[in-house]
Amino acid sequence: MKIGIVGLGLIGGSIGLDLRAKGFPVVGVSRQAHICQEAVRRGVVDSAGIDLKLLATTDLIFICTPIGAIVPTVKQLVSHLTIDTVLTDVGSVKTAVVEAIAPLWQNFVGGHPMAGRAESGLDAAEPNMFAGKAYILTPTDATPRATIEVVQRAIFALEAKYYQCRPEDHDSAVAWISHLPVFSSASLISACLQETDPKILALAEAFASSGFRDTSRVGGGSPELGMMMAQYNQVALLRSLSVYRSQLDQVIAEIEQANWTALEQRLQQTQVARPQFLS
Amino acid sequence: MKIGIVGLGLIGGSIGLDLRAKGFPVVGVSRQAHICQEAVRRGVVDSAGIDLKLLATTDLIFICTPIGAIVPTVKQLVSHLTIDTVLTDVGSVKTAVVEAIAPLWQNFVGGHPMAGRAESGLDAAEPNMFAGKAYILTPTDATPRATIEVVQRAIFALEAKYYQCRPEDHDSAVAWISHLPVFSSASLISACLQETDPKILALAEAFASSGFRDTSRVGGGSPELGMMMAQYNQVALLRSLSVYRSQLDQVIAEIEQANWTALEQRLQQTQVARPQFLS
Repeated sequence: MKIGIVGLGLIGGSIGLDLRAKGFPVVGVSRQAHICQEAVRRGVVDSAGIDLKLLATTDLIFICTPIGAIVPTVKQLVSHLTIDTVLTDVGSVKTAVVEAIAPLWQNFVGGHPMAGRAESGLDAAEPNMFAGKAYILTPTDATPRATIEVVQRAIFALEAKYYQCRPEDHDSAVAWISHLPVFSSASLISACLQETDPKILALAEAFASSGFRDTSRVGGGSPELGMMMAQYNQVALLRSLSVYRSQLDQVIAEIEQANWTALEQRLQQTQVARPQFLS
Repeated sequence: MKIGIVGLGLIGGSIGLDLRAKGFPVVGVSRQAHICQEAVRRGVVDSAGIDLKLLATTDLIFICTPIGAIVPTVKQLVSHLTIDTVLTDVGSVKTAVVEAIAPLWQNFVGGHPMAGRAESGLDAAEPNMFAGKAYILTPTDATPRATIEVVQRAIFALEAKYYQCRPEDHDSAVAWISHLPVFSSASLISACLQETDPKILALAEAFASSGFRDTSRVGGGSPELGMMMAQYNQVALLRSLSVYRSQLDQVIAEIEQANWTALEQRLQQTQVARPQFLS
């Protein structure tokens, strides 16, 4: 099985490293010639270039571009492919991507490896990044069984934990645990910046420690990525944000009314529930 | 300078370890006799017992009990002390504590070491926990200069970074960077639990990774501690929560209106601002 990868950044580069290590031949395509050279030099791919035509003879192609470039890339790519070539992407939102690609290519299944690092780009690529992590495929009723199986073979080679669900269910789930946290976290930073007394703001900056560091981390991440989540997962994210706001309103009411019993029960519930999300 | 410590848990134990290592004699008091024995065995204190009278000959006493027990402890303690004994506490909220102790003991100054761990109790105590971390004293206009200097001597021995501010300013600052994060984080967990489709909740639990782990950490922490923050810092916390809710409302409006330019600017601002809180 010959692998193609479009986009040689953190995810594309890490997929290449692992699949090559497992003996699959890997061809890479990047818009930047120097990244192609660097990817070959680092052993991320066997060969690489800037022309999508290089992928004509591959069996399975991972589209590892930013979300906004996935559909335009597939549009350019398909004219070079034979009909059996299987396509998959690694975007963190699935419904919009899957719907847009359906009329373009039948042997496509949306994918989402739940792995990553704060850093991005080829420099950040590393071996075994997907081992033990969730890797989700989101076929529709129209996705051929054989298409799913081809991508599964690569996922098993990456030693990831395989999950399968509908694109809409994927987007609802990641709205809760991936996209909502970005905006609750960003709002925390924004709120602190509203402090109008420079003396208190300076103290807040001086006193912030691990609690603030952790809670604010994803809200201080890539603006492009955060915006893409909101653009491509707008409906599910708004639903989660609305539920979040209503929980926040309840917290505020409990504190205003000095209803410490209710507040303690709430915090007991969150303390018990959190480990379910982290097992 | 002979040191007394009431409450031999994470903070009291760690203070004892470091001050003993710097050559100060340290006497401990805990309500639990077995903790007293254990503290002596581990070298956290030179001697310990359950009777506050043991602290009669000390020069500086750290009250390291939970917030709710600080004032009751001081009430019991003062009858055993000579007038020059300096008292300080380590509670994470200052205005309420400082106001309550002012009429009880003149040589008192409120304190707050900004250090900690997820674990609590004597088992979690460790050397050098305060080195390089902020340690804040919150004197009032009535606090004798000499009282502050006595506690400063111990803070310098702990190698902490010394800060001084008014109790009210301390409470406003920690509302932003310590107490608000607990409730924004807890609301995230609460919101996820509102998902009514068990299939999607199961996917959310399976897909949650480092972003959710970090953002939810302090919201899944000790319910007692969270409740104490709200009880003892109610006014400043409600002010911060109200600003937070209004920032969240703006985020929701931007996403509803597909105002991606405004959303991206917001995320650029939070990305730039976050490091100021972590330097």
